[in-house]
Amino acid sequence: MSKLVRSAMPLFAAATMLATSALAAPPGTRPDIRIAEGPAFSMASIPAYKGDHKDIYAYIDAHKAEDVANLQRWVRQPSVSAQNIGIKEMAALAAADLKKIGFKEAEVVPTSGHPGVWGYYDAGAAKTLAVYMMLDVQPVEEKDWQVKPFDGALVDHPLGKVLMARGATNTKGPERAFLNAVEAIIATRGKLPVNLMILAECEEELGSIHYPELIAKYADRLKTAAGSIYPGGGQSPADGAVAMQLGNKGVLYIELEAKGSATGGGPQKAEIHSSWKATTDAPAWRLAQALATLTTADGNTILVPGYYDSIRQPNAEERSLFNGTLPGWTKREVNTRKSFAIDHWYDKMDARASLTRYLFDTTLNIDGLSSGYDGPGMKTILPHRAFAKLDSRLVPDQTPEESLRLIKAHLVAKGFSDIEVRQLSGYPPSQTSVSAPLVQAVLATYNKYGLPVDVSPRSGGSRPSYVFTKTLGIPDVTLAIGHGADAHAPNEYLLIDPKPGSKVFGLSAMEKFYVDTLYALAATK
Amino acid sequence: MSKLVRSAMPLFAAATMLATSALAAPPGTRPDIRIAEGPAFSMASIPAYKGDHKDIYAYIDAHKAEDVANLQRWVRQPSVSAQNIGIKEMAALAAADLKKIGFKEAEVVPTSGHPGVWGYYDAGAAKTLAVYMMLDVQPVEEKDWQVKPFDGALVDHPLGKVLMARGATNTKGPERAFLNAVEAIIATRGKLPVNLMILAECEEELGSIHYPELIAKYADRLKTAAGSIYPGGGQSPADGAVAMQLGNKGVLYIELEAKGSATGGGPQKAEIHSSWKATTDAPAWRLAQALATLTTADGNTILVPGYYDSIRQPNAEERSLFNGTLPGWTKREVNTRKSFAIDHWYDKMDARASLTRYLFDTTLNIDGLSSGYDGPGMKTILPHRAFAKLDSRLVPDQTPEESLRLIKAHLVAKGFSDIEVRQLSGYPPSQTSVSAPLVQAVLATYNKYGLPVDVSPRSGGSRPSYVFTKTLGIPDVTLAIGHGADAHAPNEYLLIDPKPGSKVFGLSAMEKFYVDTLYALAATK
Repeated sequence: MSKLVRSAMPLFAAATMLATSALAAPPGTRPDIRIAEGPAFSMASIPAYKGDHKDIYAYIDAHKAEDVANLQRWVRQPSVSAQNIGIKEMAALAAADLKKIGFKEAEVVPTSGHPGVWGYYDAGAAKTLAVYMMLDVQPVEEKDWQVKPFDGALVDHPLGKVLMARGATNTKGPERAFLNAVEAIIATRGKLPVNLMILAECEEELGSIHYPELIAKYADRLKTAAGSIYPGGGQSPADGAVAMQLGNKGVLYIELEAKGSATGGGPQKAEIHSSWKATTDAPAWRLAQALATLTTADGNTILVPGYYDSIRQPNAEERSLFNGTLPGWTKREVNTRKSFAIDHWYDKMDARASLTRYLFDTTLNIDGLSSGYDGPGMKTILPHRAFAKLDSRLVPDQTPEESLRLIKAHLVAKGFSDIEVRQLSGYPPSQTSVSAPLVQAVLATYNKYGLPVDVSPRSGGSRPSYVFTKTLGIPDVTLAIGHGADAHAPNEYLLIDPKPGSKVFGLSAMEKFYVDTLYALAATK
Repeated sequence: MSKLVRSAMPLFAAATMLATSALAAPPGTRPDIRIAEGPAFSMASIPAYKGDHKDIYAYIDAHKAEDVANLQRWVRQPSVSAQNIGIKEMAALAAADLKKIGFKEAEVVPTSGHPGVWGYYDAGAAKTLAVYMMLDVQPVEEKDWQVKPFDGALVDHPLGKVLMARGATNTKGPERAFLNAVEAIIATRGKLPVNLMILAECEEELGSIHYPELIAKYADRLKTAAGSIYPGGGQSPADGAVAMQLGNKGVLYIELEAKGSATGGGPQKAEIHSSWKATTDAPAWRLAQALATLTTADGNTILVPGYYDSIRQPNAEERSLFNGTLPGWTKREVNTRKSFAIDHWYDKMDARASLTRYLFDTTLNIDGLSSGYDGPGMKTILPHRAFAKLDSRLVPDQTPEESLRLIKAHLVAKGFSDIEVRQLSGYPPSQTSVSAPLVQAVLATYNKYGLPVDVSPRSGGSRPSYVFTKTLGIPDVTLAIGHGADAHAPNEYLLIDPKPGSKVFGLSAMEKFYVDTLYALAATK
């Protein structure tokens, strides 16, 4: 139901639940998003970047060992934001590197949470580019890894020699590779073709809670940038395809807690002997029951009333991008499933359906469940507390505020007012147009290398790029060259030396690509 | 519906779901158990035990310090069966104690799991008594304790000086107190008035999986016993009341696992980035959804079809015992709730209703939930596995086999055949008649001390006493003197020195009671 129709209703009718629900879609009704075949964005419409920078490429080839060592230094410094492990040290290390490279300003910037890092490189150039970086990583379960996750080991992999470590691909590896490229340009040419404003955070894996603080501090200067880039992401090993994701989903991250209370019953102080279940309310059951009301039995459709209502239909550019990227996804999706050991997407969706959901659907995911005893064998207790961590990925025009409100209202309506809902993070989706000069320059560079490029309206993941596109109003692009995998999982890696005949770039090729990108950007009108 | 009616149906009709479910009670329908006021068992019907053993009491008073030290030795030896911590050492310690006390046979007995301990004391007496002991304890969460749980600390408590340690009341404390009494008799009188067969296990907290093996090994000798006693349980601090529980519920302990699979979808190898929820089945949702089908929204009524069907109505003895014990429960239940920090029983049940459920109702309890990330802050993952541990307490005539079958069939019928159900333990309920001479002798001893006694048909908890009442066919009684609390919880304790005016026995009084009990038993016909 459109907001126009709703606001045209007499207020007294709109205010009654019955009248509203009679007009609104039933809970669990997704907007019917079906994109017909039609105009498809094509890379053929973009002329290839012609620049060639042999002197810089030669420098990169000659300094391979130092460049690998730089990545190892970065991943060997643990920086687990969720557990506050090594964050300060990582920020100091990054700031020191910037200073050494030649950034006039290079400083650790305190926030209300973990610090960030600001760096300004003054090339005296006409154009300025903002660079987003994240210096933190996900927690690790060391026992699941084949190497120690912070050893920075070089490992033989079917694709070639890889750097296997937490942060190798998400995202300290590509970020330090970008700085290697910057170093190579300065060493060869004396200075960069653009000015750089690097603003790094150490809380991406916590939902970038304080990145807006960092942005606010430098907003006046950042607004002068032609756009913002993020050296992350990677190529598909099957065909070398790169993904140009022009935005990302937003996120709402919440924690649900059921506990013994005066209203909910149950023990309030500690677990009790499980024989008392005969007479006693159990928070763990309340949590399971509350969770179950949130989705259909298969866990794939959200039953919170109104949750899908603010999702808008894809616009013309998004439809064109969808049709342009579908063939690439159709080729990649089997390998993607294989890499996750997933037999089939839910409902056995085909490539078109799964891509539609990946790009245009919201999600509600359980990141963690915990209550009572989870050790080996048995413990017969009635736990007094039970927790679930959930994240919801948000698409236009969802907002974290509205999504949270709907979930809370639904739980209350279903009789679960005893369940506490705490927001841990939330920010809106973000989008950049494919027509932005920044985007066109990056695409031109991909074309120079003849790479298959999937230009997609957004990633299914989240990062706080809304601060660039919404707060600062500048375009924002992720560079997606090179190959890594298992971000957020054990044995995360970044490919350093591909085997001969490989379709994907290794470290040195990534760096040359970054060099080209900076010159291509400098040349835009 | 009775089994007679069902078996009288034509086979073809009984075999169809529709015909069966048309006759069976709808899922979630408990047997309507309402016990009217009527004949009530009264302790006044039992003459008090007249024996007086001043010489032995004096010995106990004189050896208080050694007796406390014996309890401390036992609780200082960790014996966490679920984590295999200190089990061997505890068994060896107990066997050595028996040998030292004068048991002719005293040995650690291997089983397919943790070992047991057998001890035989030959008094040349006409009567033999079997003694059940458990030497294992629940796991601990040390951070929740006010003292180290295996330090055997003596702590000042509102009730007096207590031994605060894991196992203090459940049940190494009372067991070693019983052995103190045995030592006192032998030291004073030269020998016991009865022969003793002690058979201890180290797996009670694991569901006594291998106790039947131990029983089988000594069955021929144990069958000659007049009955079996278990020195466990305790008095209410409010009025000194003791609970004589003439049996216990059985138990079914299961683990549910949802995981990525070819049939269920979802990642099979490791957690994946949560953005893929847009296209991917999630085991954690499947677990939550499967759990939710098992109970009503409040978590207090089991919706597994047939689950309540085999529960029989209380018989005449049980009704009389219920009416006899209700006044005591009515006095105690507020304090019980207070000790657990529970505001009210579920459905705000009164004393009569809560006692009915505690004694005659089955349960389904969540002991633990686990999936994905449960640390501080956020991790955005889609976990590939999710677990729930559940226990169900069983009343006559439920069996663990049938209960497990019904749960499995229900999950399959609800479309959750992707959920794996593993049984970790299971045994039937057990019951002893109040008219057994063993029971009468113990009740007579309580009457000697003028204690309020609640004689109840069973405990809401479980222990493997079916091996005595069903396998061996001998009566079985728990001795419930002294006071402890927080079994299975932090700060478990046993009262050693009550404050003046206390209604409950301390350690020496417990030991004197055990002395009387053994002589009272020896005197039964």
